[in-house]
Amino acid sequence: MRVLGVDPGLTRCGVGVIDADSPRSPHLVDVGVVRTSPHMDQGHRLLAIEEGLNAWVQTNRPDVIAVERVFAQHNVMTVTGTAQAAGIAMLVAARHAIPVALHTPTEVKAAITGSGRADKAQVAAMVVRILKLDQAPKPADAADAVALALCQLWRGGSVNRYAAAVQEHAARRGRR
Amino acid sequence: MRVLGVDPGLTRCGVGVIDADSPRSPHLVDVGVVRTSPHMDQGHRLLAIEEGLNAWVQTNRPDVIAVERVFAQHNVMTVTGTAQAAGIAMLVAARHAIPVALHTPTEVKAAITGSGRADKAQVAAMVVRILKLDQAPKPADAADAVALALCQLWRGGSVNRYAAAVQEHAARRGRR
Repeated sequence: MRVLGVDPGLTRCGVGVIDADSPRSPHLVDVGVVRTSPHMDQGHRLLAIEEGLNAWVQTNRPDVIAVERVFAQHNVMTVTGTAQAAGIAMLVAARHAIPVALHTPTEVKAAITGSGRADKAQVAAMVVRILKLDQAPKPADAADAVALALCQLWRGGSVNRYAAAVQEHAARRGRR
Repeated sequence: MRVLGVDPGLTRCGVGVIDADSPRSPHLVDVGVVRTSPHMDQGHRLLAIEEGLNAWVQTNRPDVIAVERVFAQHNVMTVTGTAQAAGIAMLVAARHAIPVALHTPTEVKAAITGSGRADKAQVAAMVVRILKLDQAPKPADAADAVALALCQLWRGGSVNRYAAAVQEHAARRGRR
């Protein structure tokens, strides 16, 4: 099972790839960020993110892509760009016929540290321990992407069922 | 000058194309909607919107694409999908090297009816009058897309300068 985690963002889109024969033995394949300049217009930034994520997918051929679920309530000033970057990740996944799973930041923190209220340093420290790394991936967006991938490895099944239920509910509302 | 207006949405993405030799003589080229089913997963919906908008751009070859500016404050439940559909429109524009202009709903209403608080029926009625149509484009998303294109035709210059100023401001903040 190979998982690509994506922590969406316009300026820094974190990406992390893990491999696991079993959920108990994950190891880090690669980690990094797709960066775009705030001097570029929005469309070209999204295009650069698409090209960057596409390259990660083609190189790493993940079985599933885990993307942070973006809520409109958080960070009103930046949520549009973050939602759009997340949309690009889903677009790239769909184009490669790779399933997507969405996880909230709270779900990721809870899966990695046991507490949904853990801070970034705690999450990074657990990522180091779980994957037996020498140091935490930098910047924080990269570490968060790896945490998302680990969350998917461990919680994927149940979260996907939940997402399917939400989608089915929305579909039923759409039919009314 | 040919303008493609896009009223972004996951279920119905309105599209309208107008042509004008001068701002005083616009005429409607084509209008419609790109639809996606709520039964599809989000990634495949975005992919379908990308393919649909791409076809509109290739067929109509607009000089500029006007997209409704999405605010996180409005419709918290649907804003993520709307923002993502808008992002796809910007992505498609960037790929074709076509400039994008963003207009708020208030700007569009003010440009078309003279009042930023006009309702949908008033906007549709003015679209019919301005373009000498027999009836308003249906559904409302299609009429809104035409209104966006007209807004861009009349206000494009100043709005673009404003957008450039906002972007420059954001870039300066990003450098700090």
